[in-house]
This record gives sequence, C-alpha cells and structure tokens, in this order.
Amino acid sequence: MPSAAILLAAGLGTRMRSRLPKALHPLAGRPMLSHLIAACEDAFDHIVVVVGPGMHALEEVAAPYPSVVQEERLGTAHAALQAATVLDGFEGDVAVLYADNPLITADTMRRLREERPEGALALLAMRPADPARYGRVLPHADGGISRIVEWKDATEAERAEGLCNAGVVCADGRDLFRWLRQVGNSNAAGEYYLGDLVEISRADGRRAVSVEASEAECRGINSRAELAEAEAAVQTRLRRAALENGATLIRPESVTLSYDTVLGQDVTVGPDVVFGPGVTVEDEAEIQAFSHLEGCTVRRGATIGPFARLRPGAVIEPRAHVGNFVELKNAVLGEGAKAGHLSYLGDATVGAGANIGAGTITANYDGRNKHRTEIGAGAFIGSGTVMVAPVRVGAGALVAGGSTVTSEVPDDALAIARGRQETKPGRGMRSRAQAKGQTGGKR
Amino acid sequence: MPSAAILLAAGLGTRMRSRLPKALHPLAGRPMLSHLIAACEDAFDHIVVVVGPGMHALEEVAAPYPSVVQEERLGTAHAALQAATVLDGFEGDVAVLYADNPLITADTMRRLREERPEGALALLAMRPADPARYGRVLPHADGGISRIVEWKDATEAERAEGLCNAGVVCADGRDLFRWLRQVGNSNAAGEYYLGDLVEISRADGRRAVSVEASEAECRGINSRAELAEAEAAVQTRLRRAALENGATLIRPESVTLSYDTVLGQDVTVGPDVVFGPGVTVEDEAEIQAFSHLEGCTVRRGATIGPFARLRPGAVIEPRAHVGNFVELKNAVLGEGAKAGHLSYLGDATVGAGANIGAGTITANYDGRNKHRTEIGAGAFIGSGTVMVAPVRVGAGALVAGGSTVTSEVPDDALAIARGRQETKPGRGMRSRAQAKGQTGGKR
Amino acid sequence: MPSAAILLAAGLGTRMRSRLPKALHPLAGRPMLSHLIAACEDAFDHIVVVVGPGMHALEEVAAPYPSVVQEERLGTAHAALQAATVLDGFEGDVAVLYADNPLITADTMRRLREERPEGALALLAMRPADPARYGRVLPHADGGISRIVEWKDATEAERAEGLCNAGVVCADGRDLFRWLRQVGNSNAAGEYYLGDLVEISRADGRRAVSVEASEAECRGINSRAELAEAEAAVQTRLRRAALENGATLIRPESVTLSYDTVLGQDVTVGPDVVFGPGVTVEDEAEIQAFSHLEGCTVRRGATIGPFARLRPGAVIEPRAHVGNFVELKNAVLGEGAKAGHLSYLGDATVGAGANIGAGTITANYDGRNKHRTEIGAGAFIGSGTVMVAPVRVGAGALVAGGSTVTSEVPDDALAIARGRQETKPGRGMRSRAQAKGQTGGKR
Repeated sequence: MPSAAILLAAGLGTRMRSRLPKALHPLAGRPMLSHLIAACEDAFDHIVVVVGPGMHALEEVAAPYPSVVQEERLGTAHAALQAATVLDGFEGDVAVLYADNPLITADTMRRLREERPEGALALLAMRPADPARYGRVLPHADGGISRIVEWKDATEAERAEGLCNAGVVCADGRDLFRWLRQVGNSNAAGEYYLGDLVEISRADGRRAVSVEASEAECRGINSRAELAEAEAAVQTRLRRAALENGATLIRPESVTLSYDTVLGQDVTVGPDVVFGPGVTVEDEAEIQAFSHLEGCTVRRGATIGPFARLRPGAVIEPRAHVGNFVELKNAVLGEGAKAGHLSYLGDATVGAGANIGAGTITANYDGRNKHRTEIGAGAFIGSGTVMVAPVRVGAGALVAGGSTVTSEVPDDALAIARGRQETKPGRGMRSRAQAKGQTGGKR
Repeated sequence: MPSAAILLAAGLGTRMRSRLPKALHPLAGRPMLSHLIAACEDAFDHIVVVVGPGMHALEEVAAPYPSVVQEERLGTAHAALQAATVLDGFEGDVAVLYADNPLITADTMRRLREERPEGALALLAMRPADPARYGRVLPHADGGISRIVEWKDATEAERAEGLCNAGVVCADGRDLFRWLRQVGNSNAAGEYYLGDLVEISRADGRRAVSVEASEAECRGINSRAELAEAEAAVQTRLRRAALENGATLIRPESVTLSYDTVLGQDVTVGPDVVFGPGVTVEDEAEIQAFSHLEGCTVRRGATIGPFARLRPGAVIEPRAHVGNFVELKNAVLGEGAKAGHLSYLGDATVGAGANIGAGTITANYDGRNKHRTEIGAGAFIGSGTVMVAPVRVGAGALVAGGSTVTSEVPDDALAIARGRQETKPGRGMRSRAQAKGQTGGKR
Repeated sequence: MPSAAILLAAGLGTRMRSRLPKALHPLAGRPMLSHLIAACEDAFDHIVVVVGPGMHALEEVAAPYPSVVQEERLGTAHAALQAATVLDGFEGDVAVLYADNPLITADTMRRLREERPEGALALLAMRPADPARYGRVLPHADGGISRIVEWKDATEAERAEGLCNAGVVCADGRDLFRWLRQVGNSNAAGEYYLGDLVEISRADGRRAVSVEASEAECRGINSRAELAEAEAAVQTRLRRAALENGATLIRPESVTLSYDTVLGQDVTVGPDVVFGPGVTVEDEAEIQAFSHLEGCTVRRGATIGPFARLRPGAVIEPRAHVGNFVELKNAVLGEGAKAGHLSYLGDATVGAGANIGAGTITANYDGRNKHRTEIGAGAFIGSGTVMVAPVRVGAGALVAGGSTVTSEVPDDALAIARGRQETKPGRGMRSRAQAKGQTGGKR
C-alpha cells in the first residue's frame, strides 16, 4: 500500500527563545526536520511538510518534498489538514508526525503502519518512567483505545493509566482528512487538536489502537535543554554505530559526530574530536585529539592531528600526515606527504611525498579572488614559507626556509626569497638593557 | 531587620594536600569564598570573613568586607567568636557559614532567616541519601530540635535519624555571641564546636529549630575530588541558566563556563569551549569548538573559532570573524573584519572590514615594553606579515604577503617588505638526494 | 612460595572487527596486555604469555617475559597448557589470566593466591548486578564450589545462583598441568575449557573454592564498546589517584590520562587536556585547557597552554611558559623563558629567560636530517623569525622580527635578515577595487 507522512513543522518554539523556527535547530549537524525526513524516507513513499508563514529556510530544508503553509496557528489538527491540498483522499497510510519529535525511528514508523488494522486509527503511545503531565491514553473494551484525556482534565483513576499520548497518528488518507475536518475547537485554547481523532474515529464506527514506542524515541524538543538532551541521544546512537563498525573511539563520550560521519575499520579517534557534516575516514587512519573535520576525506592510513583542522574540500591521501595547528581547505595532500606544523593550505594541491615545513602559508586570497597553489611530488617547502597564489612549485623543487614565493619554481629547482642576514655585534638585548639602565632613556 | 553573615574561611584544608588556603581554591573561575560572598550579598546586609594567620590573599578576596584573624585554630565556635570584634551585640540576624560549603543559595539563606522564630536558634539541616557519618539532628518535643549528636557518639536509634547537621546556624547577634562564649571544649579534640549552640540555646530557655536544604547545596569541600564534584554542580547550574536564556550549547556537558559568563539569545556554542571569567557574547554570535575566551566581548553575529583564543581586552565587533589558531589580546577587531588563520593580534586595533591574512603577527613587545599596531578600515594584510609595533597601516592600505612592516603605511598605500625571489634550476631535492647517494657526502 | 601467571593473549577478537590482535588494543596509552602484566608483576614472580601464531608485535609487548605460541585455537585449557613448556611441574602457585580481562588488580590476584587452601583449585568469581548469560558457579557442601554450569545448559534453579564464573584459576603448578591434560573437548564447540578444572580437581580428591571480586574488575573486553567502557574505568581510577595526590583537575571527566602520568602537588589541570604516555608535571605547574602532552617534563611552576603541544623530549624548566599554538619537540625551554604564541621549537635548546616571539619557527629538517637550534640565555627572538638549523643565537642576542636566521648570531649581537620595506602611495586596496570596478579587469 502506498504511504505518506505529514510533518508538522510550523512551530516557532517560544520556549526555545529563538528567532529560528524550531524545526531548523540542528541535531548532529543538520536541522531536526532533516532527521525526521531521513527516518520518514525509510518508512513512507511521500512526504509533505507543513510550515508557518515566511519560513522559507525551512521550505528549502524540506525540498524536494513539498511544503504547505499553515497561515494561522490553530492547532495540530488544523496544521495536518493543510496537507489536504496535496494528499486529500490519498489511498493508503497517511501518518502525521512532528518536526520537534525527530528521534522516532523508521522501525517505529513501520510498526505504526503494520500494526494498524484496516480502517482503524493508530496512535503512537509510550509508557514514560515518570508520566507526569502527559495526556493519558484510555483503553477500550475491544483491546484498542477509546480516547485521550489531557492531564489537567483527568481523574485520579485516569491519571493512574501509564500509557501516554506520543502524538503521532496514522490512518488511511481517505479517512484521515474526513476525520480531521470533524475536529472542533471548543476547548480552553480554542485550538483544533489531533488527539481528538481517537474519539472521532470511534464515533465513525472504526477501531482505534495504540502502538507503543520507547519514551526516548518519543521525546519532544521544546527548549534548548531538551534540544541538548536530544543531541546527546543522537550522539549516543552515532557513537555506538561507529564502535560496532570497527572504529576505536578512545573516549567516545568526548567525540562529536555528525549524522553522516563515516569511519572505516580500525580507524582510531582520540579524545575531543569534532566531526562536522560530510566526513569520510577510511580504514586504519588515525584522528588524534583536538581535531576538527568537516566536508573532507581522510584516506587509508593517514594520520591527522592533534589540533588539525580539515575544512570542506580537504582530501588527505593515503599515509599522508597533517599535524598540529594545520588547516586545510579545498586542498589535496598527496600520498605520504606531510604538513606537520602551523600551516595553512587553502586551494592547494600537494603532490605525493612532498614535505611542507612548519609555518607554511598559501596566500590564496588577494582581497577579491581565490587562487590556487600547486606543489609537485617530492617537493620540499622550507619552514616559514609564504606562497603567493596563483603559483606553482614543481616536483622535486626546494624552497628555502623563510621565503616568499611569488613566481613559479620549476621542477627540481631551488628557490630562495628572503632578506640577507646582517649581524651587528654588541647590539643585542643585554647591551640595550644596560644602555637603558645607564641613561634611563626610552627607545 | 538588619542581618550579617560570618564566613569561616580559616581552614587550611589538609585533605586538599595544597599550599593554598582551602577557601581560595576556585569554582567556575573564582575562589570558593567569592561564591559564598556573592550568595551572602543577596541575603545579608553585612559580611565578616574569618581567616587564618598570614592569609593575606584571602583577605584581598574578602575585600571590601572586613576580615578578622583566628590566630589559633580552636574549632568552629572559636572561629565564629572572632567576629565579635566587628559584630558583638549586633541587633539582627547573624548567620555563621563556611567557605568550604559554597553552594548554599541565597534563597536557602533567606529561608534560614525567615523560618527562625524570634529569639530562637536556627540550624541548617539536610536529609542525605546516605547519611553515613554525618552528625544527627535530634528532634525536640516542641517540633524543633534538641541537640546534635556526632555519629561516633550516637546510639543505633539516633543513627536511624535521617536529619543531619549541615553546620550553618543563625541567631540574633545579641544572643549569638553570648552563646558562643558558653561553648566549651571538653571533648576528644579539645575544640569549640558550633553545633553545641543547639543545646546552649535550649539551656538558655530558647527554641532551636532546623531549616532543611538539599544535600547538593550543603555539600562540603574537603578534598580535590569534592572540589571537582562542586565544580560539576556549579557548571550544571550555569549551563542550565545559559540554555534557559536562549543560547544553544550543542553539547553542554563539554562546555566550561565561568560564574559571570553572559551568553545572548541565539548564541551557539559548539562542543569543547572554555569560558574564563569576564566574557560577554552578544546575540546570534557563534563560538565554535575548541575556543578559549577570557575577559572579552564578542558582539552580535560575530563568529569565533574553532581553535580561537580571545584573551583579556579582546573585542570582536559585529559580524567579524576570528578563525583557527588565532589569538587576540587587548585588541579590537572591527565590524565585519576577518582574521581567519594562524595569527596573533596583540595590542592592536583593526578597522571595519579589514582582512588579516593567514600567519599575520603583531610584534607588540620589544623585550621591555608593549606597543600598539593600528590597522585601518578596509586594509588588506597579506599572509605571513609581521607588523613591528608601534606601527600604523592606513585605511584601504595593502601589505604584500610575506612582508615585515616596520614603518607606517599610509591610507590606500601598498607596502612590500620582503626578499626578492632567486630561482636556481636543478638544485632542488631530487638532485640533492641523488648527489648524496653518489658521494655519500653530508651537507 | 614462588608463583607464576599464564596470560592468555592469543585471541583475535572477532567482535572487535580489527586487524590488530585484541590484546594489543590500548587502554590509557598502552596495550591491554601491558596493563595485565603490570598488575601481575605485583602479584607473581614469573609471567608467561600465550600468543597466537604470527603475533610478533604482541611478543614484543610481552618481553622480557617469555611467549609461547598456541598454534591452533582449541580453547582456554588448551591455550594454558601451551605454557607447560616453560612451567610444567612448577612448584608453587600458577594462575591463568586473560589479556582481555585487564582490569583485575594485583590485590585481587594476591587474594586469589592467599585464599586458596593448599592443594586446592581457586576460581575467581563475581556477583554481577545482572548475571545474564554468565556461567554459574555451583556450591559444594564443603563450603567450596562443585562445578561451573554454562548458562545455556543450566536449569532454572542453577540460573538463580548469583555467583558467576570470572574465568581466572589458580592452583599449584604440579597439579595444574596434570589437570589441564585431563580436560576433554566433548562439547558442542569441540573446545578444551579451563572451567572444567573445577570438576577435575574435585574428581582428583581436592577442594575447589571461589574467590570473589567486583564485576568491574572482572569485566571482559570483547568489542570496541567494551574497550571504551574499560578505558573509562581506567581513566576514573587514574583521575581519582591524581586528585588524591594533590592535583586539581578542574573538570576531571574531561581530562585524558595515561597509565604513567605523574602530576605533582598543587598542579592545576584545566578542562580538555590530554596526557599521552611518559609525562611528568612537577609541583605548582599549570596545564591549561586544550593542551596535549606526551613524553615530556614540566618543571615546578611552569605554565602550559592553552592549546600547547609538548611532544617527546620536551623539557619545560621552572617557571617557563609555553603559550597557545606552540609545539615543542625534543627541546628544552629554559627557566623563566617564554614561547607564548604560534611557534615550533624542534630539536632546540632555549636558555633561561629567553623570549621567543610569536610565530617563531626552528627549521630543523632539511629533507634528510634533523639539526639543532641553540638559543642562549636572555636572548630575544623577534616575532615571525625562522631559524634555519643548525644555527646558534648567542646569549643576550637580539633577532629582529621577521628575520630568517641562517648563520650564527654571537652573544649580545643583533641580527636582522629581512627585506627592506617599500611603500607605494595610492596602490592599496581601495584603488585596486576601484580600478577593477572601472575596467572589469582581473589581476
């Protein structure tokens, strides 16, 4: 049966105290909406996102899936109903999910579909350790559920019910939109609530059932503290997967991963390493402490850090080495090449086996444009070298330490570009300090 | 009613194994005594600190509040009595607190005052999850308390009492000092104990009552491990407040805050960031991973890090950018200016929109004095530039990469100060390696 | 009585998903086998390690203790029996331990020996919070134990037994090898199991007893996740010891220690610091956040970091200072000397009181060999200096900022080696931007 998911993402997240729409706040390097979309892609054929007015950034995140705008915030059922313009009468499962509940797994979504009897409404529910003020899900004599009662309206007996509403519903599209249109707003807040579908489906002669999931999956994100808790939950999932895949994380709790971090077998990751989005580390590479990687590839057996920064477009070829206080951006470091200390390689290509001395800088920006630096295989760049791009240093070439290279150095050539040393006896620090003491003068 | 707090801070903290007086050990960037003083300032009108002999550094921390010296360490009651020189006969609430119990909140202190019946002694007490060897607080028939019994002297029945002594007391100053003078030292240690005030006040025909606080607040710091636990508790408080205030801390547990860190709304703080004292980050600024800030201001929308170091006196103006391996000290980076890579800007002013190339150094120290570097708006400092201060680079000026600037560069001028490049064909690495192979010679 | 330990280290660790033998995976900076050997050295006179075929790296780690090779992996009893070539008929205690249970303490090992009645077999056992699928240890009427039953073969009554097999055994060498030869392999896996010794010793008319240890000590390492848990356990032990020894770790949970890290009294370690093997920090030194130390010595009162990297051979003399983005390797920084910013000192000696300016680089490598840089006491190295080794800068000498030093600077001399500044009015950024706008040209 075909299936579709409606993702409610119009919320402003007042309790976040943020100018950013709530669904754009990131988890593990991407907006929480993207997390939910990724899980939905494994469980549904179609996705529609309901956004608030003016949330263009959110629509871009939702793309290529269509967005519909909820012009007025009149409640969750009203929000879901906006998707009728795309899905009304959809013949198949339609689920309604929330962008601020992004930890629900595709497995749970599939169970929600599979465990729904034909014609019925399925509601996701949970049994929290502390049910607190969650709405309670009341049982029905047929083994399903009869209705949801809000905590503040619940009797003591109802509050004793451990099953709580996790908010997500699923029904056939031909039923769902009819039911959504029957939801009323005669409540204290004057809002249209999705939870009313339970009673409405029953009144329609259908069954309603609950499908249980863990509290951890169902947790909502309503504040920065809850955002941080969700981040921790996602990080724990990602770290566990990395370990199971055969990487060593020496202190996993100190490593920050992104949703798409790929770590090969026998990769070692030291303490305090941050992986931004788009990183692949191949087998047997080592990422030492205090390294920060994003949008880069580290090939087999390469060693990175400590204190290395790999920015988008960095490619570290096999067995190459990037050392401390070294930054690469849009740069390839060739097989077995080394850039060990205090260097910036931007918009550069470094050939195999080349040695980049300490304090090497590629001057890639002239205030208007970026230019490339090319360094050939086996070249030796002396310490403290500035290469003013565009410039090429040939294979096997040697640049003397302290040079500023502005024009091409051919293959196998030597370049020197620095001032000649003058030495003036007796004019060092001790003499100057003495002079100062004698005269009281200031330089 | 006026009120005063006596803070006992004479302890050496033998179990700390430290040369530093215990009350000087820091929590969240300031001495634990300062934490207690800050809380007391919200609950009391006057503060007196009791220090040990020769603890001048502690007296400085206590200032402007007066310190009195306990010449001999004869017990807590004896220590408190030293404050008589300042407070004897004080008409109002006088509480005695401990510098090594610095987590007690002002709220609790106010409750201690408010819940004390007139003429009575109030004792702070707690109900620890594991009462262990704490002194037990025994009830009195009038609903108050009758006395404190030390664990080692307690019967099994008394040990079953869950209410434990947290040490802090409060009474009217006219009673307190009279009672303190009645405390005896006929016990195993020969010390004068503050806890004896419970029985003494009762013997004086007064009531004694307990005021309960959480174990977490009452915890004492007697070892480095307990200091670390207290630090963790303070960090948790600070992080929670930052989140509630509308900042995103991606992994809050990895962020170190100081007692006075100010984070605006929609500030994002990456993993592994350290805030020393005196930092203000304005709205919508971003502090990326592995950044270390102290005594600095980051204005709206600026981006910092990763791997940035902002030292005292650094001011990062709106939308400016400080990148990796960049240090600023006593330096202003103008609106929209960028210092992206491997630079040191000390005692410097950088104008709006200026671009500081990778590897730029301000040589601000000549071995005797510090000098300033001024860089005008829109200037472009090429990579690998050293600016020998005092020096000025004008607005719109351009310094060529690899230059050492020693004299003024006027507005809109170009400066070059580097050696000319010489290129010698065939004298690169490959030839040298070959030569070496042929001759076995050493360079 | 003499004693010996047989350490079983032949495992490949399939669940680790690693090319490395399991026993080589590191904990706190050394292979887990080395941890076990270190504990055994405090409890046994002799050690023999059983390795798999081709595990030469493991044999090197075991040295100077002898290794024997288990050519075929036929079970734990078979592995232990390989040690007969060294220990057969050994008159004294012989214990069999596992390289993947490296957290067992020497105290526990000694208890295993001491609590073993003469002639008996002693088995290490534990009472896990969740016994799960551990083998159960069944009691004997004489107060000892009768046999081990695997979980899958156990009755419900047997599974209710809380005492579980921790695997380690101890017996007299004259008994042990006789019993090992009686172990059969008529089980599902066709392997020879060490646990069978309990029944075999009973059948031989001897007693068998259990010696209990905590679950934490007995935990095995079978996956990367369990390796990380063991690392966390070791780190907790090491941090606790450092705190008890009088060091302040501001956020101990963020500090990574090695098995041999030595921290003196009143040492302060900031958040996020990594200690590799071989580090000694003397009293009152301070290691600030984001520092990475390995194989180095920091003497009394020195201050390191933040963002400092000390590599093997670095010695920081008393009260010297290493600042941010500074790396030292095989280099001595003299008493009171300072290297505060963005520098690389490799194969160097810096005299007392010298000042190393920001951006100083020792060019110690010429592509073939490393050379030394010597800087005399009280010298002043201006910012942005490259020193091309081998080179010597004398005591009290001064090197002007931006210099590349290639030849000796005598004591008290001044050296300048940089290009002269040329300034060209009106050729700065604003003019160029304008020019570009007018002409549309590209540089």
